Amino acid sequence: MAVIARLEGSQSNGTPNALDNLRDLCATDFARVNQLIVDHMQSDVPLIPELAGHLVVAGGKRLRPLLTLASARLCGYDGDKHIGLAAAVEFIHTATLLHDDVVDESDLRRGRDTANAVWGNQASVLVGDFLFSRSFRLMVESESLRVLDTLANASAVIAEGEVAQLTTANDTATTEEDYLYVIRSKTAALFAAACQVGGHIANRNIEDETALEQYGANLGIAFQLVDDYLDYSATDQAFGKGVGDDFREGKITLPIVLALRRGNDDEHVFWKRTLEDLDQQDGDLERAIEILTAHGALSDTLIRARGYADTARAALATLPDNAHRTALEDVVDFCVERAY
Amino acid sequence: MAVIARLEGSQSNGTPNALDNLRDLCATDFARVNQLIVDHMQSDVPLIPELAGHLVVAGGKRLRPLLTLASARLCGYDGDKHIGLAAAVEFIHTATLLHDDVVDESDLRRGRDTANAVWGNQASVLVGDFLFSRSFRLMVESESLRVLDTLANASAVIAEGEVAQLTTANDTATTEEDYLYVIRSKTAALFAAACQVGGHIANRNIEDETALEQYGANLGIAFQLVDDYLDYSATDQAFGKGVGDDFREGKITLPIVLALRRGNDDEHVFWKRTLEDLDQQDGDLERAIEILTAHGALSDTLIRARGYADTARAALATLPDNAHRTALEDVVDFCVERAY
Repeated sequence: MAVIARLEGSQSNGTPNALDNLRDLCATDFARVNQLIVDHMQSDVPLIPELAGHLVVAGGKRLRPLLTLASARLCGYDGDKHIGLAAAVEFIHTATLLHDDVVDESDLRRGRDTANAVWGNQASVLVGDFLFSRSFRLMVESESLRVLDTLANASAVIAEGEVAQLTTANDTATTEEDYLYVIRSKTAALFAAACQVGGHIANRNIEDETALEQYGANLGIAFQLVDDYLDYSATDQAFGKGVGDDFREGKITLPIVLALRRGNDDEHVFWKRTLEDLDQQDGDLERAIEILTAHGALSDTLIRARGYADTARAALATLPDNAHRTALEDVVDFCVERAY
Repeated sequence: MAVIARLEGSQSNGTPNALDNLRDLCATDFARVNQLIVDHMQSDVPLIPELAGHLVVAGGKRLRPLLTLASARLCGYDGDKHIGLAAAVEFIHTATLLHDDVVDESDLRRGRDTANAVWGNQASVLVGDFLFSRSFRLMVESESLRVLDTLANASAVIAEGEVAQLTTANDTATTEEDYLYVIRSKTAALFAAACQVGGHIANRNIEDETALEQYGANLGIAFQLVDDYLDYSATDQAFGKGVGDDFREGKITLPIVLALRRGNDDEHVFWKRTLEDLDQQDGDLERAIEILTAHGALSDTLIRARGYADTARAALATLPDNAHRTALEDVVDFCVERAY
């Protein structure tokens, strides 16, 4: 998820990137979403806006709410219910981050101290619950049972993915299938729902909604795979977590799964020691990157990411060809190209 | 919340209590709710039903779903949407318990090891999220936006109450008003919503729904006050947590608030040491009980509980006079009388 931070601002060469373009295209809606987010994290209990504000101020690029806004507009929607839904989607994401940080015992998120490092796990759990409840209220305001059904389902799937990740964490026997199940659930499900609900409120037919869902789901997988890749190869550590965070936490991501499948006994011993036992020494990260590179595990992760990206882009083909569709197509390329 | 366990089964003299009567009256519906709870905690991720089942098997009397069932029937509802709503209410409650135990770092719940003690905090947080999401799906199935609005609102209020409790925990400056805010939010809000949604699906007018809400809210407060009282005076430790748990955790409950208001400087020093600094020695619990008794703090807590109980009972007066109403009235008495 740290990739969100890397999406920050313009590209290093100063030209606006596809995310900037998407944000510009949705600028009026996006400003309303940001205001709604601030309004809905208020509470008579001061710790709530204080803690939630910590995460919200830290930013993140709000890619998911942008997907909701653009999907609705792509479908010709001219009401304003997409504003509340976009805020609801961001609240689900924020609640998940708060609970994730408790789970990972992380100390840094988007380059700042995590909320749990500042206020303790207890407050992070409860404020996450509050934001999740608030997201639910925002959804109810859409008065669309299809929207509610889609987002309720996505929320349950995200939680299932997080639990599945917990059970595969530090387990070098994790298969590619196991891994894909986890990221489809914990990451791609919210991307998919964020897009799909844009179709719901625009009252599109089931084919168009499925196209949006497929776009979001495949974009989400590509996004996560690039994130996994960057954790072993990013050169720019200015934002968010640095290279090697997944390794230090013993996370079994796709590059690791591929290297394990292709590795010899010595390497298995190495992965078991470093990722299962979390017994890590100086030079281990460098050796990990060497092994991953030798097996083509990093490049193959990118090839797979490009495959999902192509599927995401293709899913939009049957939808109206307008500026919002183009912006969503470009965001796919951007998500993959940040790896280069 | 430990009181739920104390509500278990029949009274010590062998006669059925009011909760048994309510359960008998709703027996067919209740069996369907219990089945639905088991069905909806299933997942392809084995840890989810395993962990959720631990808590569900441990029981608890499912007072909240019974309130939903009885409220709907009291209002003459003859459909079956109250079944799913009752299960949803229980899931919200169960999710709250899972997160509570993480927050409190509890080891025992309903006389068994807590889920977090067995599977760790991480799994408890995430399975709580899963159950909360599932409750949301169950609510969506009611296809009633009023139901969704009421329960979404209650969920946010519960989270606010939990955060407020966190900020008043171990704080001997907590006022009676602070304390009432916490229990209205964290306990009474779900009792109120559990009753109110019974009115929603029965399509009652706003006066009847408000009556049900008032019944639930006041019952919830009375229930919590008796719980606070019992923590310093229960003689039966066969079920749930034992006497003195709140004291050992430094919880500022109503008896403490009253004793603090009425106490001298020596006593303030005592409460600060034991509840704020959690510096407790042998004999401290006994001294706490002595001080509480000397100031009438325990008996006055019960007097207040009876006041809320009377208000709860009175709220039902304008509703149809039938067996379900009588059973709900009797449950109020039972909740208070268990203190004697």
